[in-house]
Amino acid sequence: MKIHPLADRIVVKVLEAEEVTKGGIVLPDTAKEKPQEAEVVAVGKGRVSDEGKVIAPEVKVGDKVLFGKYSGTEIKIDAEDYLILKEDDILAIVK
Amino acid sequence: MKIHPLADRIVVKVLEAEEVTKGGIVLPDTAKEKPQEAEVVAVGKGRVSDEGKVIAPEVKVGDKVLFGKYSGTEIKIDAEDYLILKEDDILAIVK
Amino acid sequence: MKIHPLADRIVVKVLEAEEVTKGGIVLPDTAKEKPQEAEVVAVGKGRVSDEGKVIAPEVKVGDKVLFGKYSGTEIKIDAEDYLILKEDDILAIVK
Amino acid sequence: MKIHPLADRIVVKVLEAEEVTKGGIVLPDTAKEKPQEAEVVAVGKGRVSDEGKVIAPEVKVGDKVLFGKYSGTEIKIDAEDYLILKEDDILAIVK
Amino acid sequence: MKIHPLADRIVVKVLEAEEVTKGGIVLPDTAKEKPQEAEVVAVGKGRVSDEGKVIAPEVKVGDKVLFGKYSGTEIKIDAEDYLILKEDDILAIVK
Amino acid sequence: MKIHPLADRIVVKVLEAEEVTKGGIVLPDTAKEKPQEAEVVAVGKGRVSDEGKVIAPEVKVGDKVLFGKYSGTEIKIDAEDYLILKEDDILAIVK
Amino acid sequence: MKIHPLADRIVVKVLEAEEVTKGGIVLPDTAKEKPQEAEVVAVGKGRVSDEGKVIAPEVKVGDKVLFGKYSGTEIKIDAEDYLILKEDDILAIVK
Repeated sequence: MKIHPLADRIVVKVLEAEEVTKGGIVLPDTAKEKPQEAEVVAVGKGRVSDEGKVIAPEVKVGDKVLFGKYSGTEIKIDAEDYLILKEDDILAIVK
Repeated sequence: MKIHPLADRIVVKVLEAEEVTKGGIVLPDTAKEKPQEAEVVAVGKGRVSDEGKVIAPEVKVGDKVLFGKYSGTEIKIDAEDYLILKEDDILAIVK
Repeated sequence: MKIHPLADRIVVKVLEAEEVTKGGIVLPDTAKEKPQEAEVVAVGKGRVSDEGKVIAPEVKVGDKVLFGKYSGTEIKIDAEDYLILKEDDILAIVK
Repeated sequence: MKIHPLADRIVVKVLEAEEVTKGGIVLPDTAKEKPQEAEVVAVGKGRVSDEGKVIAPEVKVGDKVLFGKYSGTEIKIDAEDYLILKEDDILAIVK
Repeated sequence: MKIHPLADRIVVKVLEAEEVTKGGIVLPDTAKEKPQEAEVVAVGKGRVSDEGKVIAPEVKVGDKVLFGKYSGTEIKIDAEDYLILKEDDILAIVK
Repeated sequence: MKIHPLADRIVVKVLEAEEVTKGGIVLPDTAKEKPQEAEVVAVGKGRVSDEGKVIAPEVKVGDKVLFGKYSGTEIKIDAEDYLILKEDDILAIVK
Repeated sequence: MKIHPLADRIVVKVLEAEEVTKGGIVLPDTAKEKPQEAEVVAVGKGRVSDEGKVIAPEVKVGDKVLFGKYSGTEIKIDAEDYLILKEDDILAIVK
């Protein structure tokens, strides 16, 4: 991995729908704003508050997460697609 | 349960209208923005303030809660529907 | 009473116009945004500030209050109508 | 007086134009947003800051004040008209 | 002077264009939002911060100031026109 | 110089395009929002934070600065044109 | 280098698409808001918080960074094009 997201940004690899089903999570197809499952591949050090405190993100590399479908910015690294999200776009960790 | 909501997010199971009536709560059908009853199934650790303080949510797993009808994001876990809400979408605990 | 409002939310029972008149308060019928009188039936513990301080509401159960007419969310408990307000929707305590 | 405004709200009795002239203050009739003169009849304890500090209002009962004409909410107490303002709607104390 | 502006409000007497020219300041007539010159006649004690600190205004009674032309609220005191500004509407002190 | 900008305001003298070229900086003519070069002639003491702290501006009198073209308010002092900017309108110091 | 960006501003040299490919990063051509790669050439000292704390940027001169395509302001220094960004426009450091 060659990318270090800044502040409270998180880089994720979106998981294919097939893998999602294997993990036991099925996302509803009628919801307008469907969350998607992804694996965290890089985590920023966290936002820096006005007091100079670094607020570390709750997610870690390797976590499976749900995030809002239209969140983030697409990038390609070594020919693979990734998304850069803000931590706040991530709804939950799935275990 | 396999889902850990982040920050001040709460996962709930929406209760059917029938169960609601049994609990003695009847929601008005004329109100435009009707609250719904649900049971809390997972609670985030709480939002982290600028001082680095974690503000724990007031609700706990098992609480029956009222929330604004169009709040949250629908997900399916093991073929059952759930909602991910922000704690601020929850109006009250019903006992 | 079976409802515990969260944070700075307040549950009130709206008082009928007749009762209002008996209390000596007459609300003007020309004002566009007329305040209404209500009795407080449940009070949240208060909002939690960024420092983790709980800011307790000024109103108490039993207080008669004035609030902006179109504020809040209607609910029914045991076949009676109530409103869930934010404390900031309450203008004054009437004694 | 039977009304206790909440937080930084102020109850005032609007002074008639005639009284205003006697006090030496004449408000311009060409200005679009004309301030009006009023007497303070009740004062909230003040807003509560995030640190839990109560910020007491600068105005006191009996003060003559200028406020923006279309500010506030009209109420009637014992058949007299009053206004509930936010302290920030009050521009100045007139002495 | 009979007026005490609240918080960070400032009462000024607008200076006529003629006086302005004498002071060596000529305001451009092509600018859309032209600043005007005025003399400060009353100063609020300053805004009160969330920590309860009073932030005293930088301007003093007698200061000549430039302010944005359409700022403030017009009032008349003893038949003379004044403006009530927020301190933030004042751009600079002219000496 | 007879002008003392308030808070975080900065008075600048816009430099003619010819001078800019001499300094080695050429501004692109295709950009929609082109920055301009100017010399700082007066600096406010800085904004006052909620804690009562004065945050002194980074720029000093005599600095050459780049700022967003349509920022600020034009004034004339002793027949010369100046601009009053907020410090945040200034992008960089050029040396 | 003759430019010192203020506060949390960052000056970058945009890298040509050819160089980007060499570094192993390929940006997707279907994304609406494509990030671009650039090299940091100057870094502001950081934003100053309300407490007077300087929050130093995470990026350093020489870092390769990804940023949102339409961010920032174009400038020319010694006939070369640069961009002035806010640190928050920078998504990640690429190594």
